[in-house]
Amino acid sequence: MANKFGKIFSITTFGESHGEAIGVVIDGCPAGLSITIEEINQYLALRRPGFGDSVSPRDEADEAEIISGVFEGKTTGAPIAITIKNKNFDSNNYEPIKNLLRPGHANFTYLQKYGIYDFRGGGRASARETACRVAAGAVAIKLLEHYGIKLVAFVSSVGNESAKVKSEDIAELREKTYASPVYCPDEKASTKIINTINKVKSEGDSIGGIVGFVIKDVPIGLGEPIYDKLESRLASAMFSIPAVKGFEIGDGFNAAKLQGSEHNDPFVKSGEQVMTSSNHAGGILAGISNGMPIIGEVAFKPTPSITKPQKTIDLSNNKTVLQLPLGSKHDPCVAIRAVPVVEAMCAMVIADFLLLKAASSHIKDNLSENY
Amino acid sequence: MANKFGKIFSITTFGESHGEAIGVVIDGCPAGLSITIEEINQYLALRRPGFGDSVSPRDEADEAEIISGVFEGKTTGAPIAITIKNKNFDSNNYEPIKNLLRPGHANFTYLQKYGIYDFRGGGRASARETACRVAAGAVAIKLLEHYGIKLVAFVSSVGNESAKVKSEDIAELREKTYASPVYCPDEKASTKIINTINKVKSEGDSIGGIVGFVIKDVPIGLGEPIYDKLESRLASAMFSIPAVKGFEIGDGFNAAKLQGSEHNDPFVKSGEQVMTSSNHAGGILAGISNGMPIIGEVAFKPTPSITKPQKTIDLSNNKTVLQLPLGSKHDPCVAIRAVPVVEAMCAMVIADFLLLKAASSHIKDNLSENY
Amino acid sequence: MANKFGKIFSITTFGESHGEAIGVVIDGCPAGLSITIEEINQYLALRRPGFGDSVSPRDEADEAEIISGVFEGKTTGAPIAITIKNKNFDSNNYEPIKNLLRPGHANFTYLQKYGIYDFRGGGRASARETACRVAAGAVAIKLLEHYGIKLVAFVSSVGNESAKVKSEDIAELREKTYASPVYCPDEKASTKIINTINKVKSEGDSIGGIVGFVIKDVPIGLGEPIYDKLESRLASAMFSIPAVKGFEIGDGFNAAKLQGSEHNDPFVKSGEQVMTSSNHAGGILAGISNGMPIIGEVAFKPTPSITKPQKTIDLSNNKTVLQLPLGSKHDPCVAIRAVPVVEAMCAMVIADFLLLKAASSHIKDNLSENY
Amino acid sequence: MANKFGKIFSITTFGESHGEAIGVVIDGCPAGLSITIEEINQYLALRRPGFGDSVSPRDEADEAEIISGVFEGKTTGAPIAITIKNKNFDSNNYEPIKNLLRPGHANFTYLQKYGIYDFRGGGRASARETACRVAAGAVAIKLLEHYGIKLVAFVSSVGNESAKVKSEDIAELREKTYASPVYCPDEKASTKIINTINKVKSEGDSIGGIVGFVIKDVPIGLGEPIYDKLESRLASAMFSIPAVKGFEIGDGFNAAKLQGSEHNDPFVKSGEQVMTSSNHAGGILAGISNGMPIIGEVAFKPTPSITKPQKTIDLSNNKTVLQLPLGSKHDPCVAIRAVPVVEAMCAMVIADFLLLKAASSHIKDNLSENY
Repeated sequence: MANKFGKIFSITTFGESHGEAIGVVIDGCPAGLSITIEEINQYLALRRPGFGDSVSPRDEADEAEIISGVFEGKTTGAPIAITIKNKNFDSNNYEPIKNLLRPGHANFTYLQKYGIYDFRGGGRASARETACRVAAGAVAIKLLEHYGIKLVAFVSSVGNESAKVKSEDIAELREKTYASPVYCPDEKASTKIINTINKVKSEGDSIGGIVGFVIKDVPIGLGEPIYDKLESRLASAMFSIPAVKGFEIGDGFNAAKLQGSEHNDPFVKSGEQVMTSSNHAGGILAGISNGMPIIGEVAFKPTPSITKPQKTIDLSNNKTVLQLPLGSKHDPCVAIRAVPVVEAMCAMVIADFLLLKAASSHIKDNLSENY
Repeated sequence: MANKFGKIFSITTFGESHGEAIGVVIDGCPAGLSITIEEINQYLALRRPGFGDSVSPRDEADEAEIISGVFEGKTTGAPIAITIKNKNFDSNNYEPIKNLLRPGHANFTYLQKYGIYDFRGGGRASARETACRVAAGAVAIKLLEHYGIKLVAFVSSVGNESAKVKSEDIAELREKTYASPVYCPDEKASTKIINTINKVKSEGDSIGGIVGFVIKDVPIGLGEPIYDKLESRLASAMFSIPAVKGFEIGDGFNAAKLQGSEHNDPFVKSGEQVMTSSNHAGGILAGISNGMPIIGEVAFKPTPSITKPQKTIDLSNNKTVLQLPLGSKHDPCVAIRAVPVVEAMCAMVIADFLLLKAASSHIKDNLSENY
Repeated sequence: MANKFGKIFSITTFGESHGEAIGVVIDGCPAGLSITIEEINQYLALRRPGFGDSVSPRDEADEAEIISGVFEGKTTGAPIAITIKNKNFDSNNYEPIKNLLRPGHANFTYLQKYGIYDFRGGGRASARETACRVAAGAVAIKLLEHYGIKLVAFVSSVGNESAKVKSEDIAELREKTYASPVYCPDEKASTKIINTINKVKSEGDSIGGIVGFVIKDVPIGLGEPIYDKLESRLASAMFSIPAVKGFEIGDGFNAAKLQGSEHNDPFVKSGEQVMTSSNHAGGILAGISNGMPIIGEVAFKPTPSITKPQKTIDLSNNKTVLQLPLGSKHDPCVAIRAVPVVEAMCAMVIADFLLLKAASSHIKDNLSENY
Repeated sequence: MANKFGKIFSITTFGESHGEAIGVVIDGCPAGLSITIEEINQYLALRRPGFGDSVSPRDEADEAEIISGVFEGKTTGAPIAITIKNKNFDSNNYEPIKNLLRPGHANFTYLQKYGIYDFRGGGRASARETACRVAAGAVAIKLLEHYGIKLVAFVSSVGNESAKVKSEDIAELREKTYASPVYCPDEKASTKIINTINKVKSEGDSIGGIVGFVIKDVPIGLGEPIYDKLESRLASAMFSIPAVKGFEIGDGFNAAKLQGSEHNDPFVKSGEQVMTSSNHAGGILAGISNGMPIIGEVAFKPTPSITKPQKTIDLSNNKTVLQLPLGSKHDPCVAIRAVPVVEAMCAMVIADFLLLKAASSHIKDNLSENY
């Protein structure tokens, strides 16, 4: 397996859904950053949207613990280990279906690859792992804040309901987003999405969705061409999130329909600064941030775990029907809960490139400038 | 910069568009693979589509040379260095515009990041670098062939013209693709695309497009969750190709509109094998190949280099108009030429995971089985 | 910081000496390996040599816990997290000396590099981190055992007392080693070493030592030239252990005095196998294991923490004398306790190359053989 | 294989001894560094010591070529590819012995690992590869000079003849070293070494040696604990050089004989700076440079290629005698020619950590300071 992400600001995550705990080790966070467990737990709480009915997590809030790397309230440069205990789970639910191949699920490919599968709650393949990303993301966001970089993610569509989102002010957009039970900053769309989710839920079904993001005040020069372009790493980050099936930056797939004269963003000066008068590129040119907002979208498939009966086979290749146990709770739309996860992944990518840029751009006139 | 891709089967590329040569070093290709320079050059020729008018490359075919790593017709395990001389270029064209910020181009971000820019023909940021990927891809494809894995990429849309593509037989699809001047296997769409390109070309403009791919007979078990999932690496690979703005696997963005009961692919047995009766997932479950065809799409923006005059500013922030020199030749639709590049990147990703799987799956009963 | 070691079988460690816990995440251990917490704790106990007076650890035995990656007694391919709680420490001892630069210690360079230093018990720089290596090493050794590879480390000298060690039988050598209170398999030398240590201890001083190792039945072909040679990685592993100042393989520094005709090991056949009639090379030729025992030595400096008063300066550059607190316990000879650490690092290096070889050697005739 | 070294300032080398060319790609060198091909070739010439009789290289000087990454005399941040053509070789010499296992050589392990061996002149395993390191080292040294860091390597012993070396002034030491035909700065020892080499040479034999190095004015704070300590990386670098069997830093193996009160270097102030009054540690504490000179020694085995007949077996396991062809020229003491190679590896390690430190130390008050 490959449970590590990032080059300088890097994380390693561990833990299964129904094991004792899950956790993350952040290696490469600069020393001297103020961070508290409260900040981490506050951010973790966002993985449990207010729309209590549409999502179905464990009952209690996650409580993270900082095990190492912070001394007298500041990071020391040492690895920051954060663990989150698992509680309120009942693995017995999974016993009756452990020999069934679950459509859209990890169990078939894990069994084939590893010859063994911790079926309890999805084991290592459970979306629970994303809590570790959010915990680490809280640290990355703290680092970005120090340099004035802001970011937000939000639900931009669920099923056929799409939001209209203006990305002018990040703080405002963030507030609207997290005020919505379905993390959608457009109030009207929010209502429609709630209805959609309630409908599929009542059918024992689930639904897909799209999460958008905006990152602002990113310094020019982040990204390492040719093979570690900013968009390349963002794409890799997004596709590492469970259920992601698509990613685009700027105009994305729509760019394929445009002509060069439409898509090219003209350079203009704005005071002493250079910027572009439009942002079809989504803030990245040739793999490097150009100072404009970085804008992207991430497509999530519908949750594969549905209570509707599904035809399948078992480990002995016999036809059967998969019926999830009555009590089992599953998120009807993973895109919602993924909002802070997308933010966290964005933050870690930007943090890493921020540090990499310090090491990889151009020679300075004297040593002290360089580091 | 980061000019390396892959973990075991890995490449490092070098060279600028108007430098002496470009090249690639393949490190980690297993020993004992038969490969000839003819096979590499034959594959390289595909980067110069037959549609002579729609694309505008250098006049002579690229001629690669194997510098190392092959002995008596077989790879030795040593790094395989391949170089391609640059010829027939005229850097003088770029002199008059070297101080202008070129919309949609690399020069602004490169100058900001590195403080220096080799402006001749796009320097390191030129799509010419992709020839190195195709050369290395020829080796990866040879390795995949050895294990019975086949793949193809093709133009699936340009502007508003879309192809209908059936992925039944890879060999047939490949033949149709490369028979089309615009690498589109759907004959009707091919004609419309040619018309579209001719039109934008006559306007001094360019147009975007989408490239699809199919990889077949991939063994179950490729991909390394959590952070090096098969789709994650494919995404990273695709976004490293110049001009890419979107990537999706399986149903992609459309999955966001579906319900779980529609999107989940039911498991069925087929003889002694397990497969799924549909393939919305595009051949990947939980980051690991499931044996079904791996299917994806890659969105390319329109070429930023257009002969139409464009408003911009120069390095001193003065407003000006960018007018590419009359003789300058630019590809009106980069998606076409990207077809073998997409194939090459797919092949290298699969080759790498094939080798990684040998190292990372499960314990074998005896040593000789394991290696 | 860089708290990760290994490519496929890789570890990330975390934790400070006086923090809540220390821990290690093993990523890349193949699935299907049987491992119990008892085996890990048993191996961990070896870091607390019986020679109670010569070493001065915490009072209670370390008790490790497996947090993830093991299901029904077997590894699952998921990251194996192991934590060890810190207990019985008193950080108050360090308060009075926290502003003094400690000769031979980490505090000066850590403060300069990170601007902050967790001075309690040495913080991240404490040798306590090596317990994590031993815990992970227990897993690696289990993997090697599965393939019939055996290894042992032992004290080969302390100060001017040297042991005579025959490496014929690993099991026997291991038994003798761990039977000695100072982990020295040569009984006579063992006694002299005990005397030496008692003497320096009574002076409030410490002493250096050398640890030797032998790895047997290593398959031919481990090691990845040019820059990841077997000896290169072993050297890197050994120098990552605190207090290591020298490493040699085979004849080591003595090889510099020999002629080629003396040093070259002649190839002979032994039954159907090829071996060499001598082993000056120490089991490695051109970066690759040759099937002969891998033999090396690791030099440890004397423990820098001594109770003897030492001249130094404080953080304000004032001259002062460092006097460690009376109650403080320090290991008079770190080489002894390093024995299982050297074993653990050897085991992890060999395990990693064993897995890498599966990915990087030569093409197999059919897919199933390759993985 | 693993033909890459370094994390930020990194190299990939390629090429065989009797192939068309060898080469190196430097990825991660900061933009804006002045470098000329003359500087590289001048440094490369040092791999051909003046002591014409003791070493036996090809007749003509190596002529490197810069293929990419330098524009108008300065590095651009793009990969710097440098190639060196192979000339004046005659592969026919190797034909008669291609089926013989050569004691101390690469051919047995390469054949076992890769199933194929390019026997011509040692193929990939030839020390000729080190020319690429020297070429890349010239660039690294240029970068270090920019920051005022100086270094030198020299022969400190051959067989039983040892030099006395004072490391006061690097420039002077360097001059004396390269003035000696055997790269030994101690004139008396130099003469004795020449005699020793002439003697072993007349016997058709070879001899080992030790190379020392000193790196001065290294900023405090280089090195990334725990697993990428400065000494750990230096050790890895040195053991990647062919024929190296031992490495030590500071007092090295002798430290194992010392007591803590002898080995600990007392901190003193020197003007406004902190330094140590002795340097047993060799400039590194806890994996991080402490500002004192970095001092180390590297042990080389005798050249395995000797003209004296040697008993061995062939590929069919038949006993035979290896007699190198009369005309074949081999270096009787590889340590001499390794002097600039050791320098080059030191320079690349320091350059890489210099860049890494910029990315990994502690948070700065504002963005512009950080990069």
